[in-house]
Amino acid sequence: MDPKLVLIALGGNALIRKGQRGTAEEQFANLKIPMRQIARLSRTHRLVITHGNGPQVGNLLLQQESCREVPSMPLEIIVAMTQGQIGYMIESSLDEALMEIGVMTEQLFVSLISYVVVDPEDPAFRNPTKPIGPVYTEEEARRLPYPTVRTEKGFRRVVASPRPLSIVEHREIKHLLAAGFIVICCGGGGIPVVRGERTFRGVDAVIDKDLASAVLAADIPADLFVIATDVPGVCLDHGTPQARLLTEVRAEELARHHARGQFPAGSMGPKVEAILQFHRKTGNPGVICRLEEIEAAVRGEAGTRVVA
Amino acid sequence: MDPKLVLIALGGNALIRKGQRGTAEEQFANLKIPMRQIARLSRTHRLVITHGNGPQVGNLLLQQESCREVPSMPLEIIVAMTQGQIGYMIESSLDEALMEIGVMTEQLFVSLISYVVVDPEDPAFRNPTKPIGPVYTEEEARRLPYPTVRTEKGFRRVVASPRPLSIVEHREIKHLLAAGFIVICCGGGGIPVVRGERTFRGVDAVIDKDLASAVLAADIPADLFVIATDVPGVCLDHGTPQARLLTEVRAEELARHHARGQFPAGSMGPKVEAILQFHRKTGNPGVICRLEEIEAAVRGEAGTRVVA
Repeated sequence: MDPKLVLIALGGNALIRKGQRGTAEEQFANLKIPMRQIARLSRTHRLVITHGNGPQVGNLLLQQESCREVPSMPLEIIVAMTQGQIGYMIESSLDEALMEIGVMTEQLFVSLISYVVVDPEDPAFRNPTKPIGPVYTEEEARRLPYPTVRTEKGFRRVVASPRPLSIVEHREIKHLLAAGFIVICCGGGGIPVVRGERTFRGVDAVIDKDLASAVLAADIPADLFVIATDVPGVCLDHGTPQARLLTEVRAEELARHHARGQFPAGSMGPKVEAILQFHRKTGNPGVICRLEEIEAAVRGEAGTRVVA
Repeated sequence: MDPKLVLIALGGNALIRKGQRGTAEEQFANLKIPMRQIARLSRTHRLVITHGNGPQVGNLLLQQESCREVPSMPLEIIVAMTQGQIGYMIESSLDEALMEIGVMTEQLFVSLISYVVVDPEDPAFRNPTKPIGPVYTEEEARRLPYPTVRTEKGFRRVVASPRPLSIVEHREIKHLLAAGFIVICCGGGGIPVVRGERTFRGVDAVIDKDLASAVLAADIPADLFVIATDVPGVCLDHGTPQARLLTEVRAEELARHHARGQFPAGSMGPKVEAILQFHRKTGNPGVICRLEEIEAAVRGEAGTRVVA
């Protein structure tokens, strides 16, 4: 029997932790935590790794806007740049983690540019809600060439976050997995594109990386979908004295909690939705766990496991 | 018999032409020229595409330095970013070019992050010679944290340009080619790394993309190595009344012209060297041609063809 196929979606904190500025040294140091676990897992599992890019996109946007001498790139290209940056950091960290555990391995692995198809009629385009990039004062915000939103910290640019429909490279990814590759892909939720019969166009949007990962996980299909983040799992009544961590939960029950508004839209909501979508399409389990507990979560010993 | 395998190295002018600022629109428009030819060639040839990144690295460096609020990234990460950016632009342009010619194809293609091993003892590290990024006044240059060189336009940062030894992903690339993929890789000559038994480290350097392409072309091995640039081919006595374009030249003879200093170090020199290196290792032909004449050059009807 083939080894189980696991898709692991790494949260933004895999690279930049709260309070850090995000130097290259910090990002490489942080990556050791998931990548050492992933290197060990590669001996017994087939693996796909996806990742977020929020802080990296923010930094690049700020740098672009600070410089009038060269043209700024559209958001789709900024996302592509972060796929290069983070794809390289993950691939080279995995490379080193494999060497550390003495796997002078024949393991094949690649980091791919990925673009993800969205619907140009997605209602998200009429109502952009996703804040990205630097924080502005109200006056600065008024002069910006794009819509902004007031957040706790100040004004920020907002962009649409349309639903991912399909990963353009899905055939390529399936082929690579069948050939035994570890595949790093769908960085930052993928480069958002609209693709017709004979046309192709990038769009100004960002795609939720957990939802994009769910589309890919269902498509390949993964035996297990892991979302690794900065909390130990899914909490009910989060922030109240009744707060409790779920260790195992039936998908139906989790969907009911979600429908009752238990999970906030900006953070746990999309993760729960991603796992539920994956489960609906495949019947396979998903797990939400801390970055430090990926291996334990794959063994069923940590995180919140969502089952049939 | 398998279709012939051709490696095409695209020069910087495939994306940004002389006098252009390098907006995304300009880069996508310029790419149509090589990518339409490459789409047609894909019907009869197996293909690997590599590319330069000079102007894109320069723009990113300038943007990084204009912004004090977020940490600047080391050169290796900037190169990785341009692999994401340009890899996406090439892949999506190829996607569209294939749709345009009605190849609703099963053609598989991917754009890979690539890193390239260099020798930490390479003499280039003691004597950095490659100018990159923005132009500074003498006073600005004195305050920079890295070495600079005086150029025609002003002062510029210089970095080492060590020899590429091997493409880390060469096994992956060979596997993909055997499976019928078009592979886009080795962007900007590759991300320069030093890699030991159990260590891995990026280095501050840039690798000549033609020399890196030659290493890859010999390794896979390509049946034909094409360097597509902004001149019609190799000229003897360039810039004199005796100037003449070579259409076909024996490798031995070209090597003699090269040894006599016919080709300038910054431009045609490394291209001639790259083709000669490839030819020495494989005995296979190479061709240097204009971007507009890639198809004709593959047919043997344009450019300077270097033969046994």
